[in-house]
Amino acid sequence: MTKKDIILTGDRPTGPLHLGHYVGSLKARVELQEKADQYVMIADLQALTDHAKESEKVKDSVLQVALDYLAVGIDPKKTTIFIQSLVPALSELTMYYLNLVTWNRLKHNPTVKQEIVQKGFGESVPAGFMTYPVSQAADITAFKATLVPVGEDQKPMIEQTNEIVRAFNRTYKTDVLVETKAHIPKIARLPGVDGQAKMGKSLGNAIYLSDSVDQVSKKVKKMYTDPNHLRIEDPGKVEGNPVFSYLDAFGTDLEKINELKAHYERGGLGDGTVKKYLLEVLLEFLEPIHKRRAQLETDPATIMEMLRKGTDRANEAASQTLSEVREAMGIHYFS
Amino acid sequence: MTKKDIILTGDRPTGPLHLGHYVGSLKARVELQEKADQYVMIADLQALTDHAKESEKVKDSVLQVALDYLAVGIDPKKTTIFIQSLVPALSELTMYYLNLVTWNRLKHNPTVKQEIVQKGFGESVPAGFMTYPVSQAADITAFKATLVPVGEDQKPMIEQTNEIVRAFNRTYKTDVLVETKAHIPKIARLPGVDGQAKMGKSLGNAIYLSDSVDQVSKKVKKMYTDPNHLRIEDPGKVEGNPVFSYLDAFGTDLEKINELKAHYERGGLGDGTVKKYLLEVLLEFLEPIHKRRAQLETDPATIMEMLRKGTDRANEAASQTLSEVREAMGIHYFS
Repeated sequence: MTKKDIILTGDRPTGPLHLGHYVGSLKARVELQEKADQYVMIADLQALTDHAKESEKVKDSVLQVALDYLAVGIDPKKTTIFIQSLVPALSELTMYYLNLVTWNRLKHNPTVKQEIVQKGFGESVPAGFMTYPVSQAADITAFKATLVPVGEDQKPMIEQTNEIVRAFNRTYKTDVLVETKAHIPKIARLPGVDGQAKMGKSLGNAIYLSDSVDQVSKKVKKMYTDPNHLRIEDPGKVEGNPVFSYLDAFGTDLEKINELKAHYERGGLGDGTVKKYLLEVLLEFLEPIHKRRAQLETDPATIMEMLRKGTDRANEAASQTLSEVREAMGIHYFS
Repeated sequence: MTKKDIILTGDRPTGPLHLGHYVGSLKARVELQEKADQYVMIADLQALTDHAKESEKVKDSVLQVALDYLAVGIDPKKTTIFIQSLVPALSELTMYYLNLVTWNRLKHNPTVKQEIVQKGFGESVPAGFMTYPVSQAADITAFKATLVPVGEDQKPMIEQTNEIVRAFNRTYKTDVLVETKAHIPKIARLPGVDGQAKMGKSLGNAIYLSDSVDQVSKKVKKMYTDPNHLRIEDPGKVEGNPVFSYLDAFGTDLEKINELKAHYERGGLGDGTVKKYLLEVLLEFLEPIHKRRAQLETDPATIMEMLRKGTDRANEAASQTLSEVREAMGIHYFS
């Protein structure tokens, strides 16, 4: 990571962001904005590839996601926050790149294949969903991103992008496009409150950054723990117990957490007591976020203005790349 | 055809236009521009879907095609002539439409399936080629075209466009997109000079509008005729004889042409004599076109300026549609 690194990252606006997002990416972005040139994309175009019928929800989520960003400390002075669909160059680059990727190659993208199964698309997978890795290559290359923070399962997307970069540079004898690197965080994924490995908007097992104190309290109380820890005096399991995973992620008093873990494992510590402490920890973590969010929510026009400015900056960078791409292809008619 | 009809038509810039283009479409455009609101698109984006490696040729052909348009009498005051890749809304609409078409549907487009075989793509068909029917739907709907002049073999493309129109209007409970109609001309296709049914740039059997008198003369002399008409005194066949097809398409003296046909069929008329007459007919037809073209060629900057103005007009119309489309989808963030 150097000051010269360019980072592209973002989220699909299909709902508000949750604690899993914070642990998995938001926290890192707040740090990365000090060290590199960071673009954070609200990926509405990509959200539409499998939410075409819920476009209103996508729209409403754009503001919610932007509020979450600012509330956790992503600073629009340091990070360019923008709306994907308002940067036409991303669609234009996609059109050029689609000609450099075979139909067969798209069919065999392992990430997409897995997602098709997960989403139950079957035979009716939309063409836009099959081609979204190419759209992603457009997003990444438009900003000449050198680093893209992704999970292990998204590595094939980075490989697809770099294949396109190499094909473009080779075909048009140029070096305008830049290969990128996957930046894979070493953080364990935060489980859902139901103990499932993945916390997901659609799974209904997430604590949102915007949840009220009451909502957080209810979710913590119902949280999944060790199912064999039936009586307080029984020994309980810490591993795979989401209550402790959350404490590891958000607690600051490591000594106390280690004590609780030991006590839980030897027996005599009730789930209620640990959950009460977790609730304290979470509310302490969420308090400044809630405060900032409440303030920001009173003035959505200012948030939209911030998004407009970020989108303008993104357009400037992406148009510059598009212009270089067209020049490399020799289709710069009016230059 | 009414004054209110909007026509979208165009050509892929992969070389200069030939007599087949004139008979099949250019002639009709000169007439249609008096009766309807006509957009003529130089489809460079589409050309790149199977000519990605020949982008320089695509670029050079744009000016050639524009010269051909003006030389035959397409009038930029009456017809909006524009360059496809310089209208970003067309790429943006494509991205939205790709989500409304299944991958499977694209695989089964009969026109595309046939073209894949013709072009010998096999397993390496580019994704951009498979998705070009969606891009075409964007072109047609962006201008709310009510009529699209196409050959019989292109009818499935119109059906694909209308499926997208219906899917969009149904999904977003709107009527902003307009269904279109295929406008199938009743003109027989002009054969190649080698007698092949199709005259094609890649087949090397075309007489170009920009061919010199000398080139036309050589091509007419080598033209395929009735292969069984060996001696002048033998009876010859008129049907399927390209020399007579060309006379039918370009000759004006019907009486003389009918006489020649009768004479040829009963024997005693040599190919050389008919070809000499055809050359006369073609040169008379081409003379004003050559004259206009020669004049226009001296000032390419004016042609480019015309293209820029047409492209501006096209951008205005397409942006308006894009804005309506985004509003119908509910993703109009800054309206």
